[in-house]
Amino acid sequence: MDKQILQIAQDIKEMKIRGAAKIGRTVATALKIEAENFKGKDTNEFIKDIKETSRFLLETRPTAVSLENALRFVLLELNKGFTNGEDIDTLKKITINAADEFCENSNLALERIAEIGSKRIRDGDVIFTHCNSSMALAIIKKAHRDGKKIKVFADETRPRLQGLLTAKELLEEGIDVTLIVDSAARIFIREADHVIIGADAVAANGAVVNKVGTATLASIAHEARVKVIVAAETYKFHPQTYCGELIEIEERDIFEVISEEDYKKLKGLKVKNPAFDVTPPEFIDLIVTEKGIIAPQAAILVLKETYGLGLFEKELWED
Amino acid sequence: MDKQILQIAQDIKEMKIRGAAKIGRTVATALKIEAENFKGKDTNEFIKDIKETSRFLLETRPTAVSLENALRFVLLELNKGFTNGEDIDTLKKITINAADEFCENSNLALERIAEIGSKRIRDGDVIFTHCNSSMALAIIKKAHRDGKKIKVFADETRPRLQGLLTAKELLEEGIDVTLIVDSAARIFIREADHVIIGADAVAANGAVVNKVGTATLASIAHEARVKVIVAAETYKFHPQTYCGELIEIEERDIFEVISEEDYKKLKGLKVKNPAFDVTPPEFIDLIVTEKGIIAPQAAILVLKETYGLGLFEKELWED
Amino acid sequence: MDKQILQIAQDIKEMKIRGAAKIGRTVATALKIEAENFKGKDTNEFIKDIKETSRFLLETRPTAVSLENALRFVLLELNKGFTNGEDIDTLKKITINAADEFCENSNLALERIAEIGSKRIRDGDVIFTHCNSSMALAIIKKAHRDGKKIKVFADETRPRLQGLLTAKELLEEGIDVTLIVDSAARIFIREADHVIIGADAVAANGAVVNKVGTATLASIAHEARVKVIVAAETYKFHPQTYCGELIEIEERDIFEVISEEDYKKLKGLKVKNPAFDVTPPEFIDLIVTEKGIIAPQAAILVLKETYGLGLFEKELWED
Amino acid sequence: MDKQILQIAQDIKEMKIRGAAKIGRTVATALKIEAENFKGKDTNEFIKDIKETSRFLLETRPTAVSLENALRFVLLELNKGFTNGEDIDTLKKITINAADEFCENSNLALERIAEIGSKRIRDGDVIFTHCNSSMALAIIKKAHRDGKKIKVFADETRPRLQGLLTAKELLEEGIDVTLIVDSAARIFIREADHVIIGADAVAANGAVVNKVGTATLASIAHEARVKVIVAAETYKFHPQTYCGELIEIEERDIFEVISEEDYKKLKGLKVKNPAFDVTPPEFIDLIVTEKGIIAPQAAILVLKETYGLGLFEKELWED
Amino acid sequence: MDKQILQIAQDIKEMKIRGAAKIGRTVATALKIEAENFKGKDTNEFIKDIKETSRFLLETRPTAVSLENALRFVLLELNKGFTNGEDIDTLKKITINAADEFCENSNLALERIAEIGSKRIRDGDVIFTHCNSSMALAIIKKAHRDGKKIKVFADETRPRLQGLLTAKELLEEGIDVTLIVDSAARIFIREADHVIIGADAVAANGAVVNKVGTATLASIAHEARVKVIVAAETYKFHPQTYCGELIEIEERDIFEVISEEDYKKLKGLKVKNPAFDVTPPEFIDLIVTEKGIIAPQAAILVLKETYGLGLFEKELWED
Amino acid sequence: MDKQILQIAQDIKEMKIRGAAKIGRTVATALKIEAENFKGKDTNEFIKDIKETSRFLLETRPTAVSLENALRFVLLELNKGFTNGEDIDTLKKITINAADEFCENSNLALERIAEIGSKRIRDGDVIFTHCNSSMALAIIKKAHRDGKKIKVFADETRPRLQGLLTAKELLEEGIDVTLIVDSAARIFIREADHVIIGADAVAANGAVVNKVGTATLASIAHEARVKVIVAAETYKFHPQTYCGELIEIEERDIFEVISEEDYKKLKGLKVKNPAFDVTPPEFIDLIVTEKGIIAPQAAILVLKETYGLGLFEKELWED
Repeated sequence: MDKQILQIAQDIKEMKIRGAAKIGRTVATALKIEAENFKGKDTNEFIKDIKETSRFLLETRPTAVSLENALRFVLLELNKGFTNGEDIDTLKKITINAADEFCENSNLALERIAEIGSKRIRDGDVIFTHCNSSMALAIIKKAHRDGKKIKVFADETRPRLQGLLTAKELLEEGIDVTLIVDSAARIFIREADHVIIGADAVAANGAVVNKVGTATLASIAHEARVKVIVAAETYKFHPQTYCGELIEIEERDIFEVISEEDYKKLKGLKVKNPAFDVTPPEFIDLIVTEKGIIAPQAAILVLKETYGLGLFEKELWED
Repeated sequence: MDKQILQIAQDIKEMKIRGAAKIGRTVATALKIEAENFKGKDTNEFIKDIKETSRFLLETRPTAVSLENALRFVLLELNKGFTNGEDIDTLKKITINAADEFCENSNLALERIAEIGSKRIRDGDVIFTHCNSSMALAIIKKAHRDGKKIKVFADETRPRLQGLLTAKELLEEGIDVTLIVDSAARIFIREADHVIIGADAVAANGAVVNKVGTATLASIAHEARVKVIVAAETYKFHPQTYCGELIEIEERDIFEVISEEDYKKLKGLKVKNPAFDVTPPEFIDLIVTEKGIIAPQAAILVLKETYGLGLFEKELWED
Repeated sequence: MDKQILQIAQDIKEMKIRGAAKIGRTVATALKIEAENFKGKDTNEFIKDIKETSRFLLETRPTAVSLENALRFVLLELNKGFTNGEDIDTLKKITINAADEFCENSNLALERIAEIGSKRIRDGDVIFTHCNSSMALAIIKKAHRDGKKIKVFADETRPRLQGLLTAKELLEEGIDVTLIVDSAARIFIREADHVIIGADAVAANGAVVNKVGTATLASIAHEARVKVIVAAETYKFHPQTYCGELIEIEERDIFEVISEEDYKKLKGLKVKNPAFDVTPPEFIDLIVTEKGIIAPQAAILVLKETYGLGLFEKELWED
Repeated sequence: MDKQILQIAQDIKEMKIRGAAKIGRTVATALKIEAENFKGKDTNEFIKDIKETSRFLLETRPTAVSLENALRFVLLELNKGFTNGEDIDTLKKITINAADEFCENSNLALERIAEIGSKRIRDGDVIFTHCNSSMALAIIKKAHRDGKKIKVFADETRPRLQGLLTAKELLEEGIDVTLIVDSAARIFIREADHVIIGADAVAANGAVVNKVGTATLASIAHEARVKVIVAAETYKFHPQTYCGELIEIEERDIFEVISEEDYKKLKGLKVKNPAFDVTPPEFIDLIVTEKGIIAPQAAILVLKETYGLGLFEKELWED
Repeated sequence: MDKQILQIAQDIKEMKIRGAAKIGRTVATALKIEAENFKGKDTNEFIKDIKETSRFLLETRPTAVSLENALRFVLLELNKGFTNGEDIDTLKKITINAADEFCENSNLALERIAEIGSKRIRDGDVIFTHCNSSMALAIIKKAHRDGKKIKVFADETRPRLQGLLTAKELLEEGIDVTLIVDSAARIFIREADHVIIGADAVAANGAVVNKVGTATLASIAHEARVKVIVAAETYKFHPQTYCGELIEIEERDIFEVISEEDYKKLKGLKVKNPAFDVTPPEFIDLIVTEKGIIAPQAAILVLKETYGLGLFEKELWED
Repeated sequence: MDKQILQIAQDIKEMKIRGAAKIGRTVATALKIEAENFKGKDTNEFIKDIKETSRFLLETRPTAVSLENALRFVLLELNKGFTNGEDIDTLKKITINAADEFCENSNLALERIAEIGSKRIRDGDVIFTHCNSSMALAIIKKAHRDGKKIKVFADETRPRLQGLLTAKELLEEGIDVTLIVDSAARIFIREADHVIIGADAVAANGAVVNKVGTATLASIAHEARVKVIVAAETYKFHPQTYCGELIEIEERDIFEVISEEDYKKLKGLKVKNPAFDVTPPEFIDLIVTEKGIIAPQAAILVLKETYGLGLFEKELWED
């Protein structure tokens, strides 16, 4: 495997590359790089190498559905080419083109979601956001660029404090940002008009998997009658959940939560550090996709359109 | 004023002395120290000095009702003595004795609340706690010492991470403790049997003022049908709320939330750092006081018994 | 009976005299007038006349507990005097003094409630009110006079449009008032910080009887997490509800709802015009009385303090 | 433009023509009239005239989606004809036929919705309705004509009292009707089996825009576990909401709420008179369309079927 | 111990004697019988015997607070007498009189609760009841005897089918009774105006311990906005809950749930048969006691009045 | 009609054949038997006989949608054959084949639903079930066979105690089962991770018709935040509900509830014995069909896919 792939995998693992959109584009690009740098001549070897690379990338973030869907997108095209008996150069080209197309689609999704979602924001609105979702921020920035005066509350998002990145991004646009600790949200939520958040995955019943803390924020927003808007590209919708699969919640390094020094002092301490939580559909008002707005309970429609009724027999990256 | 008082005031301000019970006992002790070290012979001067000390101490934590009630307790006795025309030595003694009595009562309250509250805990229970409340921990430790096998989830309690202190205290007792970030509580709350927390103040309608994050925890516990138990000594009940006064929520230093370095980088960033929030009575199942267990809506009873129907005209520390 | 009494009765019936406080003071004054103008010399005749007058006044508004309690207040003193064998002049004087005392207390209640309740209002607050309650308006005006900038939404309060009177009273004070139809309240309620309303009666379990529409307003405020404050003098607390009695809801003239002309055109139409509705205690956050603030569930305390445990055997106005 | 168009526009504006179904048919008919009376020979002029007429009609009621959809229906056909290079007489005929077809469809929708919706009503049911929706009333009348004994509560629907029109229509059918003020609904709602109302528009997430007061009625019905049925033709479903557009709430003349005389007396009074409110999908049990019954969260299905995934680029009435 | 005592204990154990009121009176009477039949002359022996009898009776139904309170009532008087040095005949007389007084009070409670509670029932009301509570039935019968036409739904109350006894009692009075299985209650609850049930115990926070199934019925009544009325004599209020004690839920014989024959066939089957459940105060609207009506949150008031602030050090039946 | 049909009909009526899946397969098989044993030669007679048999079978359980859908499935094929002018032997063959296909599909559905649904169950889960649904039990058994350690609470399901059958089936698999009375579920529900139940029918809005008691169990599970999973084959989805039809709730023999002996003793007793209740979609988290998992609000999708937009004009079994 190309050295760059190793670096990419490490960056995803260490969350230097974060956000589902970026992860999706990055792994598509990783397959492109692997294809470009593949030295062999044997098409069987090439397929084997790309599948192996795919499986290697899959392990970096088991819950990132965009990662899986990016791989599916590229492998599907490659598979067709291979079945058609294309030669090694054509297969490399197919792989590169598919990766480029995925990235382009993903970038268009950002714009489209920004366009659609920002229409829900009125001049003078107060918005809450959590973590650092490029989709959610795209909506907020678009509204700001359209001349709407908005105010944003960003919670810090323990343990990795992605809220600071959010604050940075929005301040650079000239948006009014207030930073708070996560647990202070309930004090300020009644001032809010919307909660706008991203998604790591959307399940068949409209439940949303997102950064830990999302479900709590959605719950208190629901309690306070503040609308919760989830921005999610259609490739975030999780096909296996339609067949009953649970979305696995990644448990991350405990030293994100506590310093090694403190941990040593606290003999016997257990630490739990789930990366995500699951927000039930009844706490979500709208999901903004690049194809339009849906109620969460209509998530099944997106899955039907994308995958039809046929269920996956075997994943494309399996030998 | 005695130098020790300055130190005490600073320690309270910087939260080196934390927890309402400790603050109450500390300011009572501060008045004792001031009395012991008073050099003058004039009783008027003494009274003036003690009142001045009281007002100085009051400013360290405007929302700490235990601080106010401790001052009221000592000043009430001193006032009686002064009215009776006692000499300077007697007044000093009265002050010292009253301070000692307050501390003793406070310590007894701890034991009493531990005794009463721990009866609600059954063998095998899972308990959530927030921040570092000596009353809440006393209940948990008592249950443990009575041989009940319990498991505790302690959230870290941003921004000052008092959850680590809680973990330390409970681990030293041999209790099974799991540390989580505040916003992960909703994932684990369904495993819990009780949320047990302290209170900074209890209002006339049973609302509880406590460390920021308490209201969110109580809200999600309520949603999950987990009982919320508040441990609050009767001197935490806030007499002025009975007359309509709102409890002022202290805004603390923003550099508890963000480092000065990061703050400089984020030009224009606003930061909000409220120390407390208000949990409405409908999210609280029981308040355990040293005199017994009440429903939050019966908080008025505690106020009636302690202060009767007569409302304060002028606080004792005013000239 | 004195002619003025007939006029007073008619004015109450036609709602020219409205508001529980005014009704209470008016009937107390009516007994004073009757006493002043009583020409006879026989104390038995006097008692009989006052009781008869009381029963006559009672019929004008069967659900006005302040009316009953005003009568009870005056009759209780008169009864004592009669039992002590006082002469006719003394009995008249007792009656006059008791009526004056009731009015004075009532006026003090207004001031006291305004004082206590207005402390809950912060600078910049938005307040909803319904109907035209002197107690609720006193709180709002006091806050305004204390220099707090407030904004009031007054619904029109069909069918008699007392909202216009409320708007008039508040505009005269220079308060910012927005008038809406009753059913538009849900649109604007999220802007509100408080709903402040009066009460015609408070039941033993904290349920509040007030102008029709109150329960709906409280319900949508509760849904939107807006605090509902009820301003109620202690003489509004309904002693019979403690013994199981239901508060009877007055059915008023249908021509308040529909013009006679329209009614004639709509053959067979039924019209219902209940004057009041019952707001359950779970929709009420606080009841402000002249003696302090209570949770609605503590209403029983007010009844206990006022009437003890002894239940009324026979009403004082019965022969 | 034909004079009749001016009259139609004024009648819509003054609500002489009310109800979305009638408005839709009326504007379709207006285009028919304009076509019939068009004197010119130039097809470009004809198109320009019809578009101008459409824009003129659009301004009478900006929130009436049926108005927009009726225009879309006719203009779509006209546009096709123009693109095909038809002559002036054919274009006029196309316009007239399209208008007739829309009206016919609309009338069939009424019957179909009455048929489908009335099956949910059982003998002996008590029904609440609000405002004067031809669709809702069609359901009620059909049930009555099928021999079911039903009882209807009609609220008066301030500020324009369309409840009286509803009462008139139902009484003429011999249905038992009780009129109440809007805010009394919560007293009688527990007697009800269904709330049946119309819709001005249905959004992509199933939220229903309807006459102000609908959301409050739906909220208290939901609280009382009474089923809320919305009758809405599929042309009421709002395509732009799928792309994020908010439905604009029309603010109507303040003198619907208050007389000019009273307004003059109340110096400084603000009045708000929103024509509609938005009922969230969680308060709605069923939407009855002429194509069947759906849960509100499935509204997106209706939009998908009618408009597919392609979003509007430019409205047909724009030049 | 007297043989009759053994029979009484067995009858309570086997639920031949059921209902807290009857149990209370029965154990009071049991002490009376024991006293009457005591043959010895030694007062110490007498005290010892009565305490022993008390402890024996206590074991028959550990959760029946009326049983405890009946014992407390008699033992308190006996204890005073013993402390005063009364002779054996006087002590026997004291015991007998105290037992008689308890029974008389209990019978008066029945009448008083019937009187107070029945005032909440209006002509035409539909009432749900569960199990076979003499207090709840007394309210229903009183309303019926007062000429109110009422209809009762009695659920069968598995596993022991006390609903049949309830049906029998009410049918004998000529009341309209419909029997249903427990789990069908949610279908019919919307027809109901009240749920009226008894209580085995009332806790300090207003939670009600009653026959298994009560909490479910109260929950669905709450959901359907049907008022839940609990009829509970003041001696049902549980003093230890004030000090944190949990009320122990009795686990009854599994062969009440399943026949021995079926149980043998189902190898490995576990069966749970809790006799009671706990209804939280938020599902209860009113508690009717013989002293008046209270909100459940005011239960503490009843405890305060009965037991003051002093907590029990040692139960009277301990040696 | 063949004698076996009479026996089958009786067995369905007496619930010897229970469970929607079995009923569906049984009536399909009944048509097969009738076809096999048909002695005549006239195709018109054959059609008439099969329709008559269908109508006869329909009457055994009017609310069993699987029964209707099984008949539709067979009759649709038969109808096509008849329209094509097939001879008697071919028509018999068509009938037999269609019946076999329906049964095979139904059996596959069981397996598929078990496969999909069991993925939601994790090792260590606690599951509640009600009645004796083959689909729900298939999910539970599959999870068990996959090596997940699970614990099941089965309520007895009055009045016919199908819970015992459930217990038997699960115990035979070696699953840990606890039996409780229906009304004890609320005590144990907080220990549960899932409620898994079957369905007799699913309506267009996602409401589920199932054995009486289901709605109560779902309501308390919802209150306790326990996920409710409904297992329903797509042929359980009720096409007429899409056109407004209500699902009729069968009233069963009262002697299921009470013995004839007891009934005779209780003169005047009414008994209600509804076989099913309706669980609203907001209490259901997921519906597992053999085609995948949907949110209940997406039930309309299943109906659209199965029946399209065309509504039934006349049922196939009508002459």
